[in-house]
This record gives sequence, C-alpha cells and structure tokens, in this order.
Amino acid sequence: MTDKLTPLRVQIDSIDAQILDLLSRRARLAQEVGHVKAETHAPVFRPEREAQVLRGVAERNPGPLPAREVQTIFREIMSACRALEKRVTVAFLGPSGTFSEQAVFQQFGSAVECLPCVSIDEVFRATEAGTADFGVVPVENSSEGAVNRTLDLMLATTTIISGEVAIAVHHSLMTRTGNMDGVTVVAAHSQALAQCQVWLNQHYPQLERRAVASNAEAAVMASNDASVAAIASEMAGEQYKLGVVQAHIQDDPHNRTRFAVIGHLQTNPSGSDQTSLVLAVPNKAGAVYNLLAPLARHGVSMTRFESRPARIGTWEYYFYVDIEGHVHQAAVASALAELKDNAAFFKVLGSYPLSL
Amino acid sequence: MTDKLTPLRVQIDSIDAQILDLLSRRARLAQEVGHVKAETHAPVFRPEREAQVLRGVAERNPGPLPAREVQTIFREIMSACRALEKRVTVAFLGPSGTFSEQAVFQQFGSAVECLPCVSIDEVFRATEAGTADFGVVPVENSSEGAVNRTLDLMLATTTIISGEVAIAVHHSLMTRTGNMDGVTVVAAHSQALAQCQVWLNQHYPQLERRAVASNAEAAVMASNDASVAAIASEMAGEQYKLGVVQAHIQDDPHNRTRFAVIGHLQTNPSGSDQTSLVLAVPNKAGAVYNLLAPLARHGVSMTRFESRPARIGTWEYYFYVDIEGHVHQAAVASALAELKDNAAFFKVLGSYPLSL
Repeated sequence: MTDKLTPLRVQIDSIDAQILDLLSRRARLAQEVGHVKAETHAPVFRPEREAQVLRGVAERNPGPLPAREVQTIFREIMSACRALEKRVTVAFLGPSGTFSEQAVFQQFGSAVECLPCVSIDEVFRATEAGTADFGVVPVENSSEGAVNRTLDLMLATTTIISGEVAIAVHHSLMTRTGNMDGVTVVAAHSQALAQCQVWLNQHYPQLERRAVASNAEAAVMASNDASVAAIASEMAGEQYKLGVVQAHIQDDPHNRTRFAVIGHLQTNPSGSDQTSLVLAVPNKAGAVYNLLAPLARHGVSMTRFESRPARIGTWEYYFYVDIEGHVHQAAVASALAELKDNAAFFKVLGSYPLSL
Repeated sequence: MTDKLTPLRVQIDSIDAQILDLLSRRARLAQEVGHVKAETHAPVFRPEREAQVLRGVAERNPGPLPAREVQTIFREIMSACRALEKRVTVAFLGPSGTFSEQAVFQQFGSAVECLPCVSIDEVFRATEAGTADFGVVPVENSSEGAVNRTLDLMLATTTIISGEVAIAVHHSLMTRTGNMDGVTVVAAHSQALAQCQVWLNQHYPQLERRAVASNAEAAVMASNDASVAAIASEMAGEQYKLGVVQAHIQDDPHNRTRFAVIGHLQTNPSGSDQTSLVLAVPNKAGAVYNLLAPLARHGVSMTRFESRPARIGTWEYYFYVDIEGHVHQAAVASALAELKDNAAFFKVLGSYPLSL
C-alpha cells in the first residue's frame, strides 16, 4: 500500500506548498487593503464583501469537495487575513460553548476576540459602548419563536443589524433515567411538539403530549417527575441532569435558530440581501394592511412579519418586518419611503446579506 | 478609497480562484488515496500524517499569517478532503457546545459526525463497540487534576490512545449578584485558587480563600450564599445562575485541559510523539524508583507521572506514565521491554503525535 500512497502524498504535499504560498500572498494583499482602509478609517469587516466571496467560491466550486466545506475553508482564510488588519471583538450571550458562540464563528471565522456576556442586554450594551465591534444575539428560535428581549432592544438602542446567521438546532427526548419505563407524558413547548410530531406518532403514539411554556420548563418537569419525558436541547438536558432516550428527533433535520449580527456598520449591497424594519400604526381596522401596500406595489417580497405588544410609548403594537432586498436598491428605497409616510413609527434596523 | 481597493480585490479574487482550483485537485488526490486505502482496509484518519502536514505548514509558513491560523485553515482542508473518503464518527462527552466538542473539532476539523454521549463511560462504550470510530475524553483538567474515570476506563477497556488535544480553559470570578458587595469568602478547588492567586492578591487580598472539592461545588455554594464568590468556568456559572464579576482571572492565560483521542488505531511515528503507559509494582520501598530506571538508562524522558489507587485487582496503585517518543523508536522500545520485565502490571495505552 505504501508504494501506491507515496506518489499521491508527494503530489498532495506539492499542492499544499502552493496553497501555503497563495495564502501568504493573499495575506499580504489583505494587509495592503488594511492600509488603504486605515487612511480613511473604513471598517475592517465588510459583511457584504465576505458574503460575495463565499457565494462566489460556492458557485465556481468544481468539486469534488461540497460547496459547504469549501466555504468553511474560505471563511477561515478570510478570518485569518482580516485578523492581520485588526482582530474584531464580538460580544455574544455566553458562556463559551453555546450556540451563540457557534454563530460568532460561523459569521467571523475563528480568528476573533470573543466577549461572552451574561445577558442579551449586556451584548447590546457592550456593542453600543464600543467595547465590542459587533454583537451576536438570537432573534428567532424555531422552538420558542421570537426572542422578545432582542426585539425590544433593537427598538430601544442605536445598534443596527449588519448580518444574520442561521444555526442548526436539534431536539432530544430525555428523561430522568434515560429510558422510557413508566413514562406517560411527553412535555415541551408547543412548537417543539409540533416539530417532532411525526417521530412521536411513529415511536410513542400512546403518550399524552403536554404543551408547556418552554422546553426548559419541560426539562425541569422531567427532572422532578419520572413519568414525564421532555423534548429539549441536550444542553438543557445536561443542566437538569436528564438522560437522553433519543437524540435528534425533530422531523425537519434542518431546524434552525436565527441570530442577528448587531453593530454600527451600514452594510453595502452584496447582491442577495434582506432588510429588517420596525413599524407601528394607530390601532384601527385595515391599518396594517394599508401600511404594507407599498411593498406589494413596488414588487418587494415580505419574508417575515411579527407583531409584538409595545411595552413603552404610544403604540399598542410594533411590527417587525423582514423584506427581500437592500435599502440601496431603487424599488426597496421607493417602497420604504412610502411606507414611512404611512407609518406612525418607522425604523430601519438594517440591510445585510442573507445568511448562507 | 474604492479606486485603491478595486485592484487589490481583483488580485485577491484571482488568488482565491487559484486556491479553489488547488483545493479541488487536492480533493481528487485524496479520493485516490481513499481508493488505495479501501483496497487494503487501511484507516481513513491517520493522526501522524495530519500532524506532519500541520507541523510542515507551520515550519514553512513565510508569514504574514501566524502559524496557528495557517494550521486552522489546513486542518479544515484535510477534514473536508478526508470526509470525501468517509465521514469519521467521533463520540465525546456531550452535550453539543462543550469543551469536549471543541476538542473534537480541534483534532478532526469540522467535517465529522459528532456523537454526543451522556457520560465518559458511554464514550468508551461507543468507541469499543465501533458505533464511533474515535472517542474524545478528558484526561487531565488543570483545575481538577486527573479525570479519574477516564484513567480507570483506559485500564479496563481495549481502546488505545491515538492522539491528544489541549484546550484553553479560563476561570472566572462569579457571585449570585454579579458584584462583590458583602462577599467575604472566595471558594474554588485548591488548584483553581492556586492558579488565580496573583490576581486574587492584587484585587481581593482581604477575602478568605476556601478550598472545596471542585469548582462546581464552589459555584453551588455561591448560588446559595451571597457572601461567597466562586472561581469556576463560565459554563458552571451559567448552570448555577451566577453573575460574572470578572472573566479570565487565571494567572496563566495558557491554562489548559488535555483530552485523549481513543480508538483502535495504532498511530505510526510522526517525528514528535508521546507514549502513555500504565504500570503497577508490588508495594515495597524503592520499587517505583527501580521500575523507572530503564527510562533513564535509555535516555527516554518522562513527561508525566501520576499514581492512582487501584479499585480492582491485586495492586495497591497504578502508575500512569507519559514518556517522550514512539514505541517504534529503538530507545523507547528497549526501555519499555526492560520496564515490562520489572513491572507486575504493564500496559501501553498508545503512542501518538504530541498536541500542537
């Protein structure tokens, strides 16, 4: 075998030497970019440029490597080159080793300074104060819905959104004992129950399904009561000392949580972008429908619409809206101008590249 | 600024295209390697080969990228190419998002199947049974010392060590309130107290220092008593709902935990290796000293020596010994042959590349 492997490994070593040389040349060019940017105090991290590079390598990738893994390699290349200019500091909801930290690495690569914070509030504070260049906060959790504190703080602070990251999230079936002996109830947030219903019908059709306020609460119940199984993340299971009966039971293996990258950076168009807004209207019939008419008129697609009771101020509800496109695009700009005229409250949270 | 940046970005794009082409050629060669290996049922993952490639790129790295970041990039390149042959499955002490998972990625790159397990026992079981190709288990924790369960299972199972990984570990000072009002005691494992003593002398010289069984126990105490501050990982703080007074207070910023990569793979020499053994001798004066004499005689350095009370069998103590070098090296082989003759119990746990 060694006889056959040796010439192949010699060729691989020669390719590695060429890659190493190209990485070095790329890094020197990145340093020149850094010098140009420093003259004009331009930002080191340009999400739209990095998104374009990652999409580009995926499009031109000749195989046999999957596009996703080529992107992982290029994310690390850009991260390392960027760190030569300046190591970007990123605040996130700690501790280390959470999905939030994973989202940081997915957006910035591993050559960053991580600043774990104890609360979403503190992530916003560190980012507003400039202690961190960026913050990463959960926006929408597929098992718990919108992360309300994040939505409130987006409204209340001066930070804007400069990117988004989607992270795969898995549900597991867990009990105090790690087996199903004597279990009669399976508890979880209603969305998590819904997301696992095919699997539950197949494996445990006889169990009572009990919807509770959160998956974490289900985990607490299971930890106190051997007749209850919880559906929750394994992290929650660990916290409440549950045993895993079966991991990854969600029907959709691509179940995801979305994170927003917040900061002060206005992102330029990348060619495939999204814009987030907050709106309010006086509470009268048809007001919301009329409010959104300009989007349809200008052919701008709405990808998300969420209402949230106002906790302060004049309006009963705030509406969080995501639309396709970038504020620098003519159709989007026209639609938003009209929308602003109709709205009692209007704030653009940011335009940014769609997550990969 | 755009005028100056455009030509630089054109050059970077051209380099990226060349890197992409080389990655594709490297991947095709890796596929050929896979075919050769498949004919002879040779293992997909060769730790010594990957360690050599990573050391090689660090040595030949012309800069300006730091060697560590070049290694991160090449680790992902090898991981992606290896996954074309076969995606290696790695069991570890879960849940996802722990230091153990970080150790998995540091050894195997991100293109692996992760199998989170609920206990160290289960990691060994999954690896012995072949459910996982490899397992990653903590061996030595700089704040708690040796991980005894791992040592016991290394003795009791047929798995061998094929690699090691060191992960940076940070200590934080935490209280129920997140501030130090009314705090009179700081609690932690004695090793953690020792590792933070310079910082404590400087910032809180007046506090009583109380050594407890583990940092987790200190976190529990702090969660029950507002006059106690705990030194522990932020992960433990999160679990017990503590606020961080100050992160990263350990005097040595390079504080580390070591993990072993276990499996069935005999690793070949990489040029910079370590060998782990377990020994026992009858309990009489000078026995241990005499036992180790062959190492000195053959010029083999001992890098770690740890005794552990036997829980089963004839011997009072087992000795866990790490030495420099590989069992295939003549001096090491001779020393071990003599050592085996003198020992009442002798087991080589494995020879493997030193962690980077």
